Amino acid sequence: MSKDFDQVPPNGLPLKYPPILPIDEQAMITARQRQNELTKPAGALGRLESLSIQLAGITRQARPSFPRKGVIIMAGDHGVAEAGVSAFPADVTPQMVINFLDGGAAVNVLARQAGATITIVDVGVNAELPTHPQLVQAKVAYGTQNLAKKPAMTQAEVEAAIQVGLDVIAAEYDRGLDIVALGEMGIGNTTPAAAITAAVTGRPVSEMTGRGTGVDDDRLQHKIKMIETALERHQLESTNPLEILRKVGGLEIAGLVGVTLGAAARHLPVVMDGFIVSAAALIAAEIDPAVKPYLIGGHASVEPGHQAILARLEVEPLLNLDLRLGEGTGAVLAFHLVEAAARTLNEMATFAEAAVSGKER
Amino acid sequence: MSKDFDQVPPNGLPLKYPPILPIDEQAMITARQRQNELTKPAGALGRLESLSIQLAGITRQARPSFPRKGVIIMAGDHGVAEAGVSAFPADVTPQMVINFLDGGAAVNVLARQAGATITIVDVGVNAELPTHPQLVQAKVAYGTQNLAKKPAMTQAEVEAAIQVGLDVIAAEYDRGLDIVALGEMGIGNTTPAAAITAAVTGRPVSEMTGRGTGVDDDRLQHKIKMIETALERHQLESTNPLEILRKVGGLEIAGLVGVTLGAAARHLPVVMDGFIVSAAALIAAEIDPAVKPYLIGGHASVEPGHQAILARLEVEPLLNLDLRLGEGTGAVLAFHLVEAAARTLNEMATFAEAAVSGKER
Repeated sequence: MSKDFDQVPPNGLPLKYPPILPIDEQAMITARQRQNELTKPAGALGRLESLSIQLAGITRQARPSFPRKGVIIMAGDHGVAEAGVSAFPADVTPQMVINFLDGGAAVNVLARQAGATITIVDVGVNAELPTHPQLVQAKVAYGTQNLAKKPAMTQAEVEAAIQVGLDVIAAEYDRGLDIVALGEMGIGNTTPAAAITAAVTGRPVSEMTGRGTGVDDDRLQHKIKMIETALERHQLESTNPLEILRKVGGLEIAGLVGVTLGAAARHLPVVMDGFIVSAAALIAAEIDPAVKPYLIGGHASVEPGHQAILARLEVEPLLNLDLRLGEGTGAVLAFHLVEAAARTLNEMATFAEAAVSGKER
Repeated sequence: MSKDFDQVPPNGLPLKYPPILPIDEQAMITARQRQNELTKPAGALGRLESLSIQLAGITRQARPSFPRKGVIIMAGDHGVAEAGVSAFPADVTPQMVINFLDGGAAVNVLARQAGATITIVDVGVNAELPTHPQLVQAKVAYGTQNLAKKPAMTQAEVEAAIQVGLDVIAAEYDRGLDIVALGEMGIGNTTPAAAITAAVTGRPVSEMTGRGTGVDDDRLQHKIKMIETALERHQLESTNPLEILRKVGGLEIAGLVGVTLGAAARHLPVVMDGFIVSAAALIAAEIDPAVKPYLIGGHASVEPGHQAILARLEVEPLLNLDLRLGEGTGAVLAFHLVEAAARTLNEMATFAEAAVSGKER
């Protein structure tokens, strides 16, 4: 792997990370050949086969494996929460971070089941948090500004938050991480995710905005109206993803942009969760399209904007279980399918090894 | 659990198994209440929540768990394979059974990943098979007759094959099995599955028939024509599932009918795989509709008839990964989601325990 950390990335992002190379064609060819020799009708493992080939390309190994899995959860607060866009009070962001640290949240349960580590990063929580071995203290600000009234972040803040993500993934990679799931916590953050999605794709805010944690019809209309007003106020250009992120994004979303870029640069598969995480991956891919083949769609969220992001990223989600929790739950749940794809490729017998007759017609 | 093995089941099936009780409403109410107290927006875990409630009902435990998982693979040959309905030669049935015993097939890899046991049952393979600790030798016949020309089984054979399934699940239950996945192996067996599906649902054979392991267009048309001719010859009544099974089914399908009935009678969740296994579950549900709430849809197969079965059983599949392998692969892969559903229900903290604020609007 190139260690050229000095290359300036495309799109003028004022931050540095190793160049993101195309995924490895030769590893994919070898993996595809092996799939066709395994004891099953060609293609009969469906998405597991195509996923195994993608994993070979990402890792540059014809027989990839992922013993060390991890989820990185970026947490941040949102000024826009004061506008009543969420069904839960903003206090829940730090409370849920504590719940993550205590092991009581859904993502903890699913990570234990998957044998995955959890790294929680305070990149912008509006509270002081206790020292804890699983918590990375990297607070850039006590939450964003209300994007309905002013830019959510300053240029210095958005750059610092992306840098937090780049630093965290670099440290996890150095500790031996083989694959990363993206997770997030931030009361109000379906609002910036919807704003980002509408700004990047040019699609109507009303079609990109959902109920988040469960707002009623009135709140949903209020949320849509507010995002529309914000997009008008900020005069965003779809070709400037960093500016979109700065003005209508969030600190945890910016952190995840850094994680995504840094993971792809190190040939790690990036498993996306739902709407918020995918909005971060979308920004990363708009900054540097080379990131796209490193992305794996963990699941399809109930949030309506999620499908628009997945379509733009050309990513098919693995799971479709009507999840709408975030935290990284859908991504961590999908680790199982990544593991199944790699294991079937690696461990199944070939027709020759098992002395099984091949297709005759 | 009732030990009344003498009750004669409904629909005149001349075999005995314990009565299948309705699933437990009180356990479901308690599980649903707990889901609403866990630290997440109500319903945010989507299908995992509804599945956890179903599992509580099936097991009659408000906090179900499944430490001992297993897949039962019934293997049998098909006289109709001589008519060229499969892309693979019939020799592949015993060859793949050996592959299962050697641990080289996809279902072995996925069962190892899931921590599930594999029980392989020779209920009708057209070859002598070696003694092996994982193989149950219970051959009823050396394959079925060609259903295009005569009834696939005699009355004695179909009853014996169902009894094999009842006996196998009883033995596995006694060894401590908590949940069962259904698997199968039998070259040519999408043909009986399509015939069963068309006969039970009354839908056109052409819409219920797919390419199985991968036949070309000509073979597919031949397969459809042959099933249509067989259904006409046998004059099946949709209200007589045992007669449908006998005349156009298969020995491994009959075995799986027995496993399904016996598992439901012991309050074990039954995780279905693809088309063939689901055709067996369909026959079981037509014989005894009380089996239906015990069924869990592992995945949606590529085979077109599978959706018709799932719709009739009112079962939503958990995974949709374009699998078309059988063996039990999709069911074993879905064990992970069953486990995730049970674990999140059992292990997540409540709002009160974690001191997280609830929904405010």
